[in-house]
Amino acid sequence: MSDVSAVKAALKSQVIETPSWGYGNSGTRFKVFAQAGVPRDPYEKLADAAQVHRYTGVAPKVSLHIPWDRVEDYPALTRHAQDLGLRIGTINSNVFQDDDFKLGSVTHPDPTVRRKAVDHLLECVDIMDATGSPDLKLWFSDGTNYPGQDSITGRQDRLSEALAEVYERLGEDQRMLLEYKLFEPAFYTTDVPDWGTSYAHCLKLGPKAKVVVDTGHHAPGTNIEFIVAFLLREGKLGAFDFNSRFYADDDLMAGAADPFQLFRIMHEVVAGGGLEARTDVNFMLDQCHNIEAKIPAVIRSVTNVQEATAKALLIDTDALAAAQRAGDVLAANGVLMDAYNTDVRPLLAELREEIGLDRDPFGAYLASGNQERIAVDRVGGEQAGWGA
Amino acid sequence: MSDVSAVKAALKSQVIETPSWGYGNSGTRFKVFAQAGVPRDPYEKLADAAQVHRYTGVAPKVSLHIPWDRVEDYPALTRHAQDLGLRIGTINSNVFQDDDFKLGSVTHPDPTVRRKAVDHLLECVDIMDATGSPDLKLWFSDGTNYPGQDSITGRQDRLSEALAEVYERLGEDQRMLLEYKLFEPAFYTTDVPDWGTSYAHCLKLGPKAKVVVDTGHHAPGTNIEFIVAFLLREGKLGAFDFNSRFYADDDLMAGAADPFQLFRIMHEVVAGGGLEARTDVNFMLDQCHNIEAKIPAVIRSVTNVQEATAKALLIDTDALAAAQRAGDVLAANGVLMDAYNTDVRPLLAELREEIGLDRDPFGAYLASGNQERIAVDRVGGEQAGWGA
Amino acid sequence: MSDVSAVKAALKSQVIETPSWGYGNSGTRFKVFAQAGVPRDPYEKLADAAQVHRYTGVAPKVSLHIPWDRVEDYPALTRHAQDLGLRIGTINSNVFQDDDFKLGSVTHPDPTVRRKAVDHLLECVDIMDATGSPDLKLWFSDGTNYPGQDSITGRQDRLSEALAEVYERLGEDQRMLLEYKLFEPAFYTTDVPDWGTSYAHCLKLGPKAKVVVDTGHHAPGTNIEFIVAFLLREGKLGAFDFNSRFYADDDLMAGAADPFQLFRIMHEVVAGGGLEARTDVNFMLDQCHNIEAKIPAVIRSVTNVQEATAKALLIDTDALAAAQRAGDVLAANGVLMDAYNTDVRPLLAELREEIGLDRDPFGAYLASGNQERIAVDRVGGEQAGWGA
Amino acid sequence: MSDVSAVKAALKSQVIETPSWGYGNSGTRFKVFAQAGVPRDPYEKLADAAQVHRYTGVAPKVSLHIPWDRVEDYPALTRHAQDLGLRIGTINSNVFQDDDFKLGSVTHPDPTVRRKAVDHLLECVDIMDATGSPDLKLWFSDGTNYPGQDSITGRQDRLSEALAEVYERLGEDQRMLLEYKLFEPAFYTTDVPDWGTSYAHCLKLGPKAKVVVDTGHHAPGTNIEFIVAFLLREGKLGAFDFNSRFYADDDLMAGAADPFQLFRIMHEVVAGGGLEARTDVNFMLDQCHNIEAKIPAVIRSVTNVQEATAKALLIDTDALAAAQRAGDVLAANGVLMDAYNTDVRPLLAELREEIGLDRDPFGAYLASGNQERIAVDRVGGEQAGWGA
Repeated sequence: MSDVSAVKAALKSQVIETPSWGYGNSGTRFKVFAQAGVPRDPYEKLADAAQVHRYTGVAPKVSLHIPWDRVEDYPALTRHAQDLGLRIGTINSNVFQDDDFKLGSVTHPDPTVRRKAVDHLLECVDIMDATGSPDLKLWFSDGTNYPGQDSITGRQDRLSEALAEVYERLGEDQRMLLEYKLFEPAFYTTDVPDWGTSYAHCLKLGPKAKVVVDTGHHAPGTNIEFIVAFLLREGKLGAFDFNSRFYADDDLMAGAADPFQLFRIMHEVVAGGGLEARTDVNFMLDQCHNIEAKIPAVIRSVTNVQEATAKALLIDTDALAAAQRAGDVLAANGVLMDAYNTDVRPLLAELREEIGLDRDPFGAYLASGNQERIAVDRVGGEQAGWGA
Repeated sequence: MSDVSAVKAALKSQVIETPSWGYGNSGTRFKVFAQAGVPRDPYEKLADAAQVHRYTGVAPKVSLHIPWDRVEDYPALTRHAQDLGLRIGTINSNVFQDDDFKLGSVTHPDPTVRRKAVDHLLECVDIMDATGSPDLKLWFSDGTNYPGQDSITGRQDRLSEALAEVYERLGEDQRMLLEYKLFEPAFYTTDVPDWGTSYAHCLKLGPKAKVVVDTGHHAPGTNIEFIVAFLLREGKLGAFDFNSRFYADDDLMAGAADPFQLFRIMHEVVAGGGLEARTDVNFMLDQCHNIEAKIPAVIRSVTNVQEATAKALLIDTDALAAAQRAGDVLAANGVLMDAYNTDVRPLLAELREEIGLDRDPFGAYLASGNQERIAVDRVGGEQAGWGA
Repeated sequence: MSDVSAVKAALKSQVIETPSWGYGNSGTRFKVFAQAGVPRDPYEKLADAAQVHRYTGVAPKVSLHIPWDRVEDYPALTRHAQDLGLRIGTINSNVFQDDDFKLGSVTHPDPTVRRKAVDHLLECVDIMDATGSPDLKLWFSDGTNYPGQDSITGRQDRLSEALAEVYERLGEDQRMLLEYKLFEPAFYTTDVPDWGTSYAHCLKLGPKAKVVVDTGHHAPGTNIEFIVAFLLREGKLGAFDFNSRFYADDDLMAGAADPFQLFRIMHEVVAGGGLEARTDVNFMLDQCHNIEAKIPAVIRSVTNVQEATAKALLIDTDALAAAQRAGDVLAANGVLMDAYNTDVRPLLAELREEIGLDRDPFGAYLASGNQERIAVDRVGGEQAGWGA
Repeated sequence: MSDVSAVKAALKSQVIETPSWGYGNSGTRFKVFAQAGVPRDPYEKLADAAQVHRYTGVAPKVSLHIPWDRVEDYPALTRHAQDLGLRIGTINSNVFQDDDFKLGSVTHPDPTVRRKAVDHLLECVDIMDATGSPDLKLWFSDGTNYPGQDSITGRQDRLSEALAEVYERLGEDQRMLLEYKLFEPAFYTTDVPDWGTSYAHCLKLGPKAKVVVDTGHHAPGTNIEFIVAFLLREGKLGAFDFNSRFYADDDLMAGAADPFQLFRIMHEVVAGGGLEARTDVNFMLDQCHNIEAKIPAVIRSVTNVQEATAKALLIDTDALAAAQRAGDVLAANGVLMDAYNTDVRPLLAELREEIGLDRDPFGAYLASGNQERIAVDRVGGEQAGWGA
């Protein structure tokens, strides 16, 4: 697709969903460094998300995390979002921070704990109903730390049962997105460790269950774009959690550690129809801005995803297909690299101008004074973080 | 299962299949070091396999590799095996050593090459018919070295089509075992890179298609025993290719690099019924003895698998289940480690004595003089290796 | 060394140092699960360490962590340790939990922050003077999360300068142990990421500076025993931080994830004279017992290290050397595996009995009722953890 | 350095050395696919290297590999190179392909084998004398496959001794470059597995001994640019072996797998003075073009290195330093990314035009008809490969 107007149209239609928790404090097990101006409640998180959308124009959706974003009145929160030009995106469940979940949630050996976990998931579907959220994202930290600690098979049985109960509860237009992760916080087995496990469960559950690919959740050396292409071919790619990493689940800004990988992923997305409405792929960020300012970090992440998408859209697909058919390795690779080596920042600047935005979202945000304003305004109260 | 006689019975019934190519020369891309006494043809390879069975008593099956083991008269080869107390096991296809396969075999962009590859696979089924082999093992080196080189999705389509044609050709009691491998010889994408891909294809093909787990074919950090447990639960574990590694697909002797991992794998096998006839799991070795003497290396590998199996069978499953139910992490881990820390060599020595074998297969083979004999006898001709 | 009495003598002389923080609460960035009976202050941590020593007989030393173990009166704490049959081991500095250290401590771009960090390290030497601690252990979380964030070379210059100042402050019999770690909490560069970096700095500092090998701090696939052998040969191995991992710095119980690796490490220790007093290698544990009971987990870790050491001592070194000289790969490997496959638990039980201990430290501790006692006694106050 | 003319001057002075073996056939242990037109002898390899230099203008040096490039008359070969506008670069020793070296070369347990290996290395210095080569590159495949196979420490002693003897033989202006590699072909220990080991030996040898960084020889997750910066700071970076990889030592074209990493490496090179004559860093390629045409693949690799260098030179170092000093993580990262995201192809095209070359080396070579010519001309004889 090398027609520039088609490229621009595709870029304009892309929606990138930002996570409410990305605006709060986060850190490692060693330390959470607090930052000035961090939101104290879900309303302030939405205000920050609105800043990102204001300057990028492609981030109107916000993921919530329950219980971190629990409020009394969800319709009020939803209206607040709408007033800010936003809508509620994915509801993220959290069954890993209650003391009862030390040895697992939906896969815990004790049925009482499992009941509590499933009830939380069902509550999340209630919140979907109340907010209009289309997607329930399930990430389970469940697993074990030591060989022998629990039965791998037994835990799969319990997982299966829990997923089925929640799936049944979903409405017509609601989806279940099942995330996988190699390790952390579990250090021996994880109950949904890889895409194969998630895929196998989703297949049994039915068409409303899809796989989430978090770009930081793989073993070293895993070819993520292969998984993306495979799942798209199977109609089972539900969403991305974009972030980047050099080592493990580092949760750095998308595109920061390996921009070429992000480009290759977006190439498979484009090739597999993942930008088209019919495939319904949700492009979410899931990051931790431990040491950098949060709103600008989210803006940079959004523009990094856009740049990778633009490059992928610029690939000369006819030339690529011809070289592939001919078995011309260097020519085919060359077609891809031509697109990657292109500086797409001018194209994106132009596109923003066309829709009334500043050419440079990062610079415009910094110049807006918002960062200084929230640092002054948001004093007192408890800053939002992973624990609250 | 801590009843010693039941443990012994299970160990006696275990069959470990050895690979014909494990008796030939092998090496790395840097050098193949030739060894004295290496077989020159499939008949001599079977003779070596018979040595392993003679001293271990549990290795009556031999995998063949086509074309390395191509002969004029398969019934004659089969009778030769029977005369040696052996039977023909798995037929391994090879669609990676013909110049036509430089860019792939069943996934090659050119349909002529694909036809040639599929024809080879069908020939392998003919050889199964002729030898009584129950299993066709498919490993594809197919993949790409550079981003853009070929379409990931297109290659899946071609793979799917080829597998379906071969599956159709299988007889009533013949199975297709689909192996996966992260990388090597392909260095960017591999067309069947992980268990999820193999599983998804097998699922579509039908009940005769099963997954092979080669213990050296995973990304660093992959929990192999999880995959084993998962596939057993799904009825999709067809076979193992046992070997071990510290880094990549090092193909060292099974149990040499991480005996505890081998034990954990065998624990899942035992727990999931994988030692029982109904699950029909094939325990194969697939190794390269680059610098060590080959027959003794295979004997040590067989006994390493036996020792891991014995330890797994010694686990006090009642105590384990009770500790798991109680959420007693240290107790559950302790039950497992008690079995692992047991020295099972006396038990296995006793068991061998009961069936008329020497207590020490490795020592007995070395004392037999066979190694010196073949070094003298097998002079001249061309030694068997990966290329011939 | 296969003379049993010599093996026992070596085992009796081995000292394993336990970490005060291993008795407190710990967890991942997702959650710290509190446990009943966890100590509230350094005095109670010492009481727990005394339990471990009481049942194992080889753990008389305790590492302190400053500021977590800061007290008003160090001589009083030291006397308390002595009353419990213990002595103060290594002093661990902490320059990673103050808000000022968000972008580094001794390598921070701002000299004011560096001064603060170095002052803390000097305070730790004061505490060594006050407690009789022989070793200062330095672990720096310093590094960067994003390419470009800071100058790699500039940070090395600052590191060098800080280390030199602290080295100068050391007394005659005090050592500096410099730890390295691949990543976490820094996710792009770490200022002391590998043994080479630590070694190069220690070499310049002088004979009192030595390298610490934390068994969880390496890239996947790293051969840790090679590093151990190399450093012993260079006289630069100062200490171990034992723990184990399947993935990253999981901090599981030593020997839990890869007991064969622990054995191989102890083999190099024994071979390189690391058990002898002259080499002064400090065998420390550094673990996080996130989900298992802490005192019994430390006991198991101690006995795991002992078992690995016992096996290493049982290697028939004459037979090994002969096989190595002869280039007999299988024989040499066989000698090693014979020792590894030996069940050394009876030997260790006997040894404990000889020095008046229970044959089974883990069981004896559980039977003692201490775990129930502390759960009742230690109610109220603030439980010790990484943050306090 | 953002002054364009200074950037161009730096780029014009960069020399990239290409490897004679990169023009020959290569492959994996599974198969070497032969290609039409591959050179049959060192003279033809030089002719191919001359093609690369003709179109890129920066590749006048060629590495030789002994014995693959052994000739009767080295002065004649040297004159042949000069006639082609080339000069002989590094001499690469090969002590891994003789049957005697199965268990090692300079670290072999048998002194006779060690003598043979050292003699080969001394012969390589003779060839340096005869060809004017300034650098001896030592890569040892030496190591072990199984725990216990040989003494790690003993092998270090032997390595040390061999290196010292060869170092003594070096002339005034000759250097020894010691390469390290994590694994392959050795699968348990490698005698020079990491930069720390190479550095420690070079330090003892003296100023003529330096470390070679092969970009494919590290454990997963290793931060290569850190090593580069560290070695430059210590004055111990001798050379690069550029190539790229997704998994292990894949030997793909430089910049093909992770162009951002190559950029980060070149950033450290530039920052540490590595482009300046005084630091004498040798920029070599060491690649295997298993499936792609060789001369064009080398051309692309050269231009990939140039593009990464150009981007590194374009970094606004003042802005970078200011952001780093201010601790502005996002600004500092932004300065780096601005340079990386720049399309430097026009700049390089312009630069080539200035020195009388075609703007597009890859296209110009393909259009020259050389590839077709050599395919026709070079029929018969034995194609060059790793074994000949």
